[in-house]
Amino acid sequence: MATGESVGAGRPGGAYAELCGLARRWGTLKAVHDLVSWDQETYMPPGAAASRSEQVAMLSEMLHEQRTGGRVGELIAACESDPDIAGTPDSDVGANVREFRRDFDRATRIPTALVGELAKTASLAAEAWKQARSASDFSSFAPWLEKMMRLSRDKAACLLPCTPAAKEPYDALLDEYEPGMTGAGIDAIFTPLRPRLSGLIAELARSPRKPDTAILGATIPAERQHSFGHTVLGAIGFDLHAGRLDTTTHPFCSGFGPGDTRLTTRYREERFTDALYGTMHEAGHGMYEQGLPKAAHLGQPAADAISLGIHESQSRMWENFVGRSREFWVWALPLARAVFRPALEHADVEGMYRAVNTASPSLIRVEADEATYNLHVMIRFQIERALIAGSLPVRDVPATWNRLYKDYLGVDVPDDRRGCLQDVHWSFGLVGYFPTYTLGNLYAAQFWETINRSLPDLRAQMSRGEFGPLRAWLNTNIHAHGRRDRADELCRRLTGRPLSADPLMRHLEGKLRPIYGV
Amino acid sequence: MATGESVGAGRPGGAYAELCGLARRWGTLKAVHDLVSWDQETYMPPGAAASRSEQVAMLSEMLHEQRTGGRVGELIAACESDPDIAGTPDSDVGANVREFRRDFDRATRIPTALVGELAKTASLAAEAWKQARSASDFSSFAPWLEKMMRLSRDKAACLLPCTPAAKEPYDALLDEYEPGMTGAGIDAIFTPLRPRLSGLIAELARSPRKPDTAILGATIPAERQHSFGHTVLGAIGFDLHAGRLDTTTHPFCSGFGPGDTRLTTRYREERFTDALYGTMHEAGHGMYEQGLPKAAHLGQPAADAISLGIHESQSRMWENFVGRSREFWVWALPLARAVFRPALEHADVEGMYRAVNTASPSLIRVEADEATYNLHVMIRFQIERALIAGSLPVRDVPATWNRLYKDYLGVDVPDDRRGCLQDVHWSFGLVGYFPTYTLGNLYAAQFWETINRSLPDLRAQMSRGEFGPLRAWLNTNIHAHGRRDRADELCRRLTGRPLSADPLMRHLEGKLRPIYGV
Repeated sequence: MATGESVGAGRPGGAYAELCGLARRWGTLKAVHDLVSWDQETYMPPGAAASRSEQVAMLSEMLHEQRTGGRVGELIAACESDPDIAGTPDSDVGANVREFRRDFDRATRIPTALVGELAKTASLAAEAWKQARSASDFSSFAPWLEKMMRLSRDKAACLLPCTPAAKEPYDALLDEYEPGMTGAGIDAIFTPLRPRLSGLIAELARSPRKPDTAILGATIPAERQHSFGHTVLGAIGFDLHAGRLDTTTHPFCSGFGPGDTRLTTRYREERFTDALYGTMHEAGHGMYEQGLPKAAHLGQPAADAISLGIHESQSRMWENFVGRSREFWVWALPLARAVFRPALEHADVEGMYRAVNTASPSLIRVEADEATYNLHVMIRFQIERALIAGSLPVRDVPATWNRLYKDYLGVDVPDDRRGCLQDVHWSFGLVGYFPTYTLGNLYAAQFWETINRSLPDLRAQMSRGEFGPLRAWLNTNIHAHGRRDRADELCRRLTGRPLSADPLMRHLEGKLRPIYGV
Repeated sequence: MATGESVGAGRPGGAYAELCGLARRWGTLKAVHDLVSWDQETYMPPGAAASRSEQVAMLSEMLHEQRTGGRVGELIAACESDPDIAGTPDSDVGANVREFRRDFDRATRIPTALVGELAKTASLAAEAWKQARSASDFSSFAPWLEKMMRLSRDKAACLLPCTPAAKEPYDALLDEYEPGMTGAGIDAIFTPLRPRLSGLIAELARSPRKPDTAILGATIPAERQHSFGHTVLGAIGFDLHAGRLDTTTHPFCSGFGPGDTRLTTRYREERFTDALYGTMHEAGHGMYEQGLPKAAHLGQPAADAISLGIHESQSRMWENFVGRSREFWVWALPLARAVFRPALEHADVEGMYRAVNTASPSLIRVEADEATYNLHVMIRFQIERALIAGSLPVRDVPATWNRLYKDYLGVDVPDDRRGCLQDVHWSFGLVGYFPTYTLGNLYAAQFWETINRSLPDLRAQMSRGEFGPLRAWLNTNIHAHGRRDRADELCRRLTGRPLSADPLMRHLEGKLRPIYGV
């Protein structure tokens, strides 16, 4: 029973209903914020840069105020002390209140001055990074990295009290992107995965048999790639009535709220698979956004994604597990051939399948293949964790980076531009973000095995272009539940086990060994 | 001297500085609102319609709150009682405060309930109008028109006390779009203009000599028209670094704030001049927006346009006085020929000039030519003024409409779809809006005569594609001053006379009589 007249799980006028009403407002404002940011990357004329940052700053500030000010804290507390809610922590409402609390605590625990300092430093550090990278001069970026790590440690100190699983400051940062995950938890998965991956990659590198990728080099005009991308989007089930695809330098996906999810991609005319897989990747994110119950729960945790790792599992699944499968090409090749004519005239399914499944050590993360990618991520995880712990001085980052690239990938880093200066993340203060990329690959692989057991016809369906059952499975089992579960809970619930490196290794070995004949 | 410590014209911390600080915030929010609305017309996926209206409604509400709530009223009063400001009503600051007051009073005088009722009725009435138009069934729209007119009268009653020039309720509505103008003032100009225009048009219609418009019927792909549109925009001086051109069903221009002004147009492949003149028209609006001192005065009246009539004078000037001139085609034809090849291969300047300067009575306002357009407007003005006065019952609108079309334009209206149901304006509650279209033509013609006296080389410059001096004149004399002057003050200051029908008649007669040989 409710204890006070303003409290009540679902009652009109109750605290929970009022909280959800406020959430709807900040969810609506967040959609506006995201649209304005999307426009900045897509159609904004360059002359608007200054006024646009003023707009974004104002919206961020209003959003922070709406999520933390007024009666929000009081309403959350009222929900928590409502026996109807407290008594059923596993109900949808109970989980929603738990997550309202999490967001509120994290948003209120960082002092405004530190928020401002982080934002200001990020914008200056990103500028310094851009110049340092183009001059391949780590020393000019080092003071900014130093400062950003110091501020990140300050931020971690603020967040530690509301990160129950944390064993080290790094965990409080990681928790922002992957709630409940810790550095030690990642370590426990990455450490055994690393030598297995490095070993496989070295073995493939030594094989005299290599996939022929010449077929991917056909020149295909961007408009035709765009048209083919739309065909694929329609088939896999990204709802173009409630979304769109545009072109940007850096592809991304942004879900603005009910009925509006936007993908971007970029076209390289001499490598059509870049845009194809980029589009399928973003569509994986997009279908997660479209599958979240935003219409009913706008602004509530119930309409949010679980974590970046789970989000990435969706993009990687469509990109790598679907898009790089033999069955996908059985369906897609005739369509591609028709749209890209005369390119691909002599391509066959087996050749396409091999061409898009290579593994070869390289220097640049964003250009890396499905297998080697994870080693790039592990290097960054190891470095950023040590930076936050203070066990790695900033000045030693380049040497450590280069040593790890030699150890894990067997490559020599020729300069910092192609080494530790290649990513913008740290300059923005995104610490704890990198590992979620590999968590995505791991979750995707583990889910994929379960899905194939649940949908024994999946491969046959894919070869006929029927992606509906897969999409429905993802929707029912993952998308529709918002942030009800933590990632590890979801993983246990769906697959019966905690996250493990085995499914990803089975996937990679099962695919790459036959292709390379090892 | 200032009377209190929180007051002061330009002093940091003074009331005026604080007011301008608040205005900067609502100007920034207004830019966001306008971007979100622009996206709705350009790139928004259809599935987002419902959530988008929620976003727009929330932003409108926040904007209203920012412009009327908190200390705004108090700060305006403090500025008004500051002798530094009150003593110099003609200074920039004095004019700005006068206009702050105008906006505040108008925004606060309409009760929230009436604002809500107007918005709700507009959305339902627009839907009813759409169905009534497609069925050509005035009777199903009549109750909505009735209700909208009643609400508009209620709105007029609220606004009358802050419309000093008003002599009738209609004036309070007109004043929203054309501050200081009255129905009687428009009547005084339209009444003598009407028979002169009707007479000219009838005379042209009787002439056996007609311009040959066949050249305009060449099929030209939209992309080439788009490319030519960009060439023209660049030449006339619309700043594409601080703006862009997109495609929509209904062309419009939206200035979002400093550095961001967006135009839209639509392409008809078999009539390239539609998009060309549409683009030049919107660019005229756009250059006004780009010329307003928004960076320094964002959100203040000092960064706003004077009135819709003056705004329209800019669009009509570039569309009709520049774009339909012989000199424009001397410059533009070789460029158009190169881009549109092989179309226009046999076109010559004289032929183009004649083809784009026709006058021929028709049924639909938005398709009307430069001369007959004004008669369409006069009919709407006469009807809406009588509707507000209560002297014309809603049920008599179709008959009155049809009679006036016969009297003024000599055409028989076959059905209400092509008659009194053709425009959406009244269903939205836009009463007092139509006359500003013809005021724009009149102001453009009167300014044009002055400009040609100030810039004796203008015609020669235009034939060389040099539009800089014209743009600079408009910027210096009109755009840079924001809302400092009322439209009639601007007109007297620039041309030495009040607005008159003579310049427009001289322009039309001087151009059309030779073309038609009458």
